[in-house]
Amino acid sequence: MSGLNDVLDKLSERSKASLSELIEFASIPSVSAQPDHKPDMERAAQWLSTRLKRAGLKTVELWPTAGHAAVYAEYLEAGEDAPTLLVYGHYDVQPPDPLEKWHTPPFTPTVKDERLYGRGVSDDKGPLLLTVQVVDAYLSTLGKLPLNLKFLFEGEEEVGSAHLNELVAQNAERLRADFVLSADGGMWSADIPSLTVSARGLAALELTVRGPTKDLHSGRHGGSVHNPLHALATLIAGLHDESGHVTVSGFYDGIAELTPQQREGIRQLPFTDEDYLTQTGAPAVYGESGYSTLERQWHRPTLEVNGMWGGYTGEGSKTVLPSEAHAKITCRLVPGQEPGRIAELLKQHLEAKLPPGVTLNIHPSEHGARAYRLPDAHPGGALAREVLAELYGKPPLDVGMGGSIPVLETFQSVLGLDTVFFSFSVGDEDIHAPNEFFRIPRLSEGQQAWAQLWWKLGHQEKR
Amino acid sequence: MSGLNDVLDKLSERSKASLSELIEFASIPSVSAQPDHKPDMERAAQWLSTRLKRAGLKTVELWPTAGHAAVYAEYLEAGEDAPTLLVYGHYDVQPPDPLEKWHTPPFTPTVKDERLYGRGVSDDKGPLLLTVQVVDAYLSTLGKLPLNLKFLFEGEEEVGSAHLNELVAQNAERLRADFVLSADGGMWSADIPSLTVSARGLAALELTVRGPTKDLHSGRHGGSVHNPLHALATLIAGLHDESGHVTVSGFYDGIAELTPQQREGIRQLPFTDEDYLTQTGAPAVYGESGYSTLERQWHRPTLEVNGMWGGYTGEGSKTVLPSEAHAKITCRLVPGQEPGRIAELLKQHLEAKLPPGVTLNIHPSEHGARAYRLPDAHPGGALAREVLAELYGKPPLDVGMGGSIPVLETFQSVLGLDTVFFSFSVGDEDIHAPNEFFRIPRLSEGQQAWAQLWWKLGHQEKR
Repeated sequence: MSGLNDVLDKLSERSKASLSELIEFASIPSVSAQPDHKPDMERAAQWLSTRLKRAGLKTVELWPTAGHAAVYAEYLEAGEDAPTLLVYGHYDVQPPDPLEKWHTPPFTPTVKDERLYGRGVSDDKGPLLLTVQVVDAYLSTLGKLPLNLKFLFEGEEEVGSAHLNELVAQNAERLRADFVLSADGGMWSADIPSLTVSARGLAALELTVRGPTKDLHSGRHGGSVHNPLHALATLIAGLHDESGHVTVSGFYDGIAELTPQQREGIRQLPFTDEDYLTQTGAPAVYGESGYSTLERQWHRPTLEVNGMWGGYTGEGSKTVLPSEAHAKITCRLVPGQEPGRIAELLKQHLEAKLPPGVTLNIHPSEHGARAYRLPDAHPGGALAREVLAELYGKPPLDVGMGGSIPVLETFQSVLGLDTVFFSFSVGDEDIHAPNEFFRIPRLSEGQQAWAQLWWKLGHQEKR
Repeated sequence: MSGLNDVLDKLSERSKASLSELIEFASIPSVSAQPDHKPDMERAAQWLSTRLKRAGLKTVELWPTAGHAAVYAEYLEAGEDAPTLLVYGHYDVQPPDPLEKWHTPPFTPTVKDERLYGRGVSDDKGPLLLTVQVVDAYLSTLGKLPLNLKFLFEGEEEVGSAHLNELVAQNAERLRADFVLSADGGMWSADIPSLTVSARGLAALELTVRGPTKDLHSGRHGGSVHNPLHALATLIAGLHDESGHVTVSGFYDGIAELTPQQREGIRQLPFTDEDYLTQTGAPAVYGESGYSTLERQWHRPTLEVNGMWGGYTGEGSKTVLPSEAHAKITCRLVPGQEPGRIAELLKQHLEAKLPPGVTLNIHPSEHGARAYRLPDAHPGGALAREVLAELYGKPPLDVGMGGSIPVLETFQSVLGLDTVFFSFSVGDEDIHAPNEFFRIPRLSEGQQAWAQLWWKLGHQEKR
């Protein structure tokens, strides 16, 4: 283990530099959803390529797509007998809105109380960057890595990884590996080590309700034509019943009920609704009746409106009866639900429930993903549990993930690979919200863990 | 009548200059609802004062309020035996949003096909300005007016005339008159002369539904805390039943049913739902069951959402479960409904219907007005009908107005004065909407009508 210790010492020695690099990386506003950030996306991909090369990787490539490019790099010098890992992460970030709620500028990463605040620091630039820093430490101390590595860092995760399927299929041969180790995903809690073994899938659509062809004066016309805002509210309100069940016919078809074992496992987790409400600030938990909070988050499908708008939303008042009203909807899926079918069922439901006096336009999103579950006996999962247990002094919990990583589906269906989540972000770090942060000590912890996992994987008994 | 003809000739001669002046006036973005337009409001008040002075009026004053100032001017040289009119109008305009729907810039008034396009040209800068131009024509040809005139042009009509009540009360003595002639209001149709004899009242409030204290990731948290957008949709959807009736308890209390005469009068008007749908572009009429379109617009109270928003409303997608959701609501009222009581009933209703898992904040607006009706035998109304009949060659129709002019209530309750609507804008001129326009020939028609009405009023048999 003397070789590994040298690597770990090097990482300790470089801890300040590691943080500075993350600050630099997270200063680039690589917002994949907004076309005016296209140059920033290119800048971020370039920055990452340069960093991979500086780490000592000889093969670093930009893989263009119809959207944003992916960054690919490889180290194959461990030889054919050594295991090969595919490391996944993403360099794009969520839009920073609402800007006025940030305490520090989202793209001026700011250190405060052992945390780094900024958009993307936790999701996923911190967890991604530390894997590159571990490569650098290995190559600059030992001159080699104990296993083969392939890095695939995409630029479209926050917009549904629309082109990744195609890209992975085109490069299936080059991406061959034993399994995927994902730098994206996040741990469940800051205090308790955990391994995420499942993720929900995703189906999304946007709808527009139209009434009059132009905005009308609500005094003159109010009460004589249908107001698209009223019609939209009726449609949205009708998507759930009073027990929190989704009313879309067929939505729950093909879903397995939770097993007594699953329910018991969740019951034993150190989780209380009180703590959860303290963490989120919500006045009460709320959801589908018959399920606990974690059961709802990990094992039940949901339908959420992510945005809804129409009419006058500025200061003061404007007595308008608007021409249009809009909503963005995403569903989180569990095993048994097909994203395309769910979007279609939702479309049919909305069309059938449309009130009179308005028309409806539905734009299904390319944003879709099946739910995922890591097999219980997966060897990568076992190794990850071992590393975490050593690092934190207690065995990690198996947890689910309410969110989605569409790429899991891609790796499984196109490459036949399972994915082990090994991210060092934490679920409470306000990702997708104002004041996203990353716990600075996690940068070192993550580096150590990745260094150890690679060492173990490269030095285990030959399979 | 030779004096009057000189005035009319002068107005004809100046018709181009009149239009140029309106373009200049309407270029000032006097948006009362938006604080950053405060300097423009001051500029518009100053412009109007200067124009009144240039018309030959010696007494022109700015009357400050806690909000935007009113412009006051008077001509009392007709003497104590002559009648005295109070002329009302407003120089503030609606916000121009949504900007992207304008074909020409809202504050660059543009002539096209006998129409002038721009924010405020119809509501109320054109109709207001022409009254000043008539004064100018009288004084520059005859050196005098046949009656006493007081002008009160306010700057807060589009934000509910919040300070006008106080201002009028403070200046009640100076504002004494026989009745009010309003340059605001609008005619019912471009083809048929009409006199507006009633207006609906107004009650308004804004609501905020709050869930978690910060935006959450809808994947991680969706389905386990209540989404404020869902709760808002439920509240809004519940405000009407399937027959289009407002469900707020007590909302319809104290309202008189339409009389058979009112219904018969409306039935005889040259109005069809088909034409109305062509005009508005709505796919169907819609509203409270048991009433025709014009009955709904003129004689039934309504509740309309003017704006609704929350979550991510930008391009692309952002899987957020937002912390807040908002809506702006206005009710149009009919005689028998008190604005304050309606706002309170609505507040109680929303609080009682609030779904669990969220909190509610309600901000009632100062924007409030009782409904109004001009007495059938009012002498000002009779004179206005006479002038319109001569100008257009057919007797005007008595029509209602779906919108509200809060100041009517002020003039009645504080000064004891009735108001005759004598505006030359038309109800289809997209006021409060993109591409507001004013029919350019109406500028001359309005000038002639005001000149004639003043002449008749000043030369009629002594009362």
